[in-house]
Amino acid sequence: MPVGTQGTVKAMSQEELADIGFGIILGNTYHLYLRPGHELIDSIGGLHKFINWNGNILTDSGGFQVFSLEHIRKIGEDGVLFRSYVDGSYHKFTPERVMEIQKAIGADIVMAFDECAPYPCEKDYAAAAMNRTHEWAKRSLESRDPNQAFFGIIQGSVYPELRVESAKFIASLDTDGIAIGGVSVGEGKELMMKSVEWCVPHLPENKPRYLMGVGTPEDLLDSVVRGIDMFDCVLPSRLGRNGSLYTTYGRINIKNNRFINDFSPVDPECNCWACKNYSAAYLRHLYKCDEILASRLATYHNLHFYGNLMERIREAIEQGRLTEFRKEFLAKYRKHRASVHDEIARQEISNGDSRNKHSHVGQCPPRSES
Amino acid sequence: MPVGTQGTVKAMSQEELADIGFGIILGNTYHLYLRPGHELIDSIGGLHKFINWNGNILTDSGGFQVFSLEHIRKIGEDGVLFRSYVDGSYHKFTPERVMEIQKAIGADIVMAFDECAPYPCEKDYAAAAMNRTHEWAKRSLESRDPNQAFFGIIQGSVYPELRVESAKFIASLDTDGIAIGGVSVGEGKELMMKSVEWCVPHLPENKPRYLMGVGTPEDLLDSVVRGIDMFDCVLPSRLGRNGSLYTTYGRINIKNNRFINDFSPVDPECNCWACKNYSAAYLRHLYKCDEILASRLATYHNLHFYGNLMERIREAIEQGRLTEFRKEFLAKYRKHRASVHDEIARQEISNGDSRNKHSHVGQCPPRSES
Repeated sequence: MPVGTQGTVKAMSQEELADIGFGIILGNTYHLYLRPGHELIDSIGGLHKFINWNGNILTDSGGFQVFSLEHIRKIGEDGVLFRSYVDGSYHKFTPERVMEIQKAIGADIVMAFDECAPYPCEKDYAAAAMNRTHEWAKRSLESRDPNQAFFGIIQGSVYPELRVESAKFIASLDTDGIAIGGVSVGEGKELMMKSVEWCVPHLPENKPRYLMGVGTPEDLLDSVVRGIDMFDCVLPSRLGRNGSLYTTYGRINIKNNRFINDFSPVDPECNCWACKNYSAAYLRHLYKCDEILASRLATYHNLHFYGNLMERIREAIEQGRLTEFRKEFLAKYRKHRASVHDEIARQEISNGDSRNKHSHVGQCPPRSES
Repeated sequence: MPVGTQGTVKAMSQEELADIGFGIILGNTYHLYLRPGHELIDSIGGLHKFINWNGNILTDSGGFQVFSLEHIRKIGEDGVLFRSYVDGSYHKFTPERVMEIQKAIGADIVMAFDECAPYPCEKDYAAAAMNRTHEWAKRSLESRDPNQAFFGIIQGSVYPELRVESAKFIASLDTDGIAIGGVSVGEGKELMMKSVEWCVPHLPENKPRYLMGVGTPEDLLDSVVRGIDMFDCVLPSRLGRNGSLYTTYGRINIKNNRFINDFSPVDPECNCWACKNYSAAYLRHLYKCDEILASRLATYHNLHFYGNLMERIREAIEQGRLTEFRKEFLAKYRKHRASVHDEIARQEISNGDSRNKHSHVGQCPPRSES
């Protein structure tokens, strides 16, 4: 799911999202509640109509935002008091209130209101937050509109017992899908994958599993092989706006001098609108000049890369060849990075001392994913 | 001509420009020479190929930029020494050099290198700049590539005798078209229109006349009735990015509170992509959230408004009803502004004192064009 926090996936039009092939986007309850307000969205008949999007919409519950963006807040058993990032005004989110807002927004899939614990986090706090999340999940479920699909959210930080307990509890509820939350909050790849591994065995086979806020193309593959179905992430759009583009042979920084006269597409194996019509050299020029079209082309391409990856993953699963596909994909995806690293290593050997060498003008820095 | 200074019309894709119906865009020799450089553009076969634009391109000569953007410069009979706004490096433009650069860029129409005098400007200086412009026009013409159409530029500031002299001189040259330059530099509407009136009688009937850097929809109409054929202006795109949208009933500021729940298109009489798919309320929301799609929709709409106006002007000329069309267009275009002014006037009368009244939240400021 491309992330359309404020009712727009940054730099994209809704027509372009449909062109790429996305059938669902994510909206943020927290942001849309504050601006333009759920009543306004309701008054025109929901978010689909307000933003003119004919596909599906999933809204997160605002739990993550309230706990990660707001410094001034008060957490109680009932809900959370927070201040608006727009104008500093006070607001209260309870499970019931959040379900009411998501109903007004009119999403196809709504998320339970949860408490996303920070990382790192003491086990006691993680357990308390998890228990609150479970209570809130029940209350969310009770107050949700039955016409909207409802997903519960597993918490438990990086503690195996808590993750297992939370997975079992959320799995016991009558939900339409299950999300693993509280990941991608700074715990690192290894613990993130472990969290998935702790949870998945306790999830029903017949409900979609959604790993929230993840991740890189490699994260997606690594999670799918562990049993995850759905993702949302700002990476492809945010990195795109910063000039970082995903290609078959790894992620590149389009601002690099090596693209000055590279008149081929950013990814010669890509058939998206941006790659079919515009060159790497033109895109680099647009970035250097701070032009809006740079963000548009890069976001379009990166979202296409992600959409295409998920499509190929689905095909591979249907054909029973996910493991091979993953191997093939990563062999290419990591190829360039390895070769660039090799080159730098060689230079270090031949030059004796190469500190900061790759930061020299005209020289290519290593491609890195993190 | 939409303005694509750096090889892109801000916020637009080339596909969208073609969709709107534009057959020609403007590029800036000065900017493209500095970034990405004319040699690079040449090496791929010209600007059309570099930016993937199948329509025509007109490049201005850089005269306006060198004289208006650069504070550190030296003007000689031979040419102009200036510093790059990108990195401070020194560069020299001569008529021959500018023609060479425009050849490398590969524009369909190239402009003579001229000296654009500032406003206000003493008559002596204006005369000297005009004489230099005439010399440079001859040298530009001699060194231009015969495969490119060539336009001369009239100067002469706001002095009738100079404008007439310059018009006669440029008209005497073997050019493909004639531009009136040195307008829209702060002299105001009245003097701008006078400059047009001084020049036009001395221009041949069989060559296109191009008024550089103009203007508002009203300016376009007022200039066409005085005999002008072509324009370029950043207004529709720049104002669009700032939330100012042209409509059949005048220019509006989409950020106004009155659009909060206006779910109709920005201009109900417009059939452009933006108006067909998105509402004024959504556009206002996008502006309030500083979203890129706001600039995209507004620029698309404003350019469509301008393109549509010029199309209707052409039709009216063919049908011999330009005067009527102008009257009809302006009656609508000025309607709302008048009614808003009337309303404010009424409030002033009824309230006794209404200073700053129109800046109150929730109240609509007068629509203004300037």
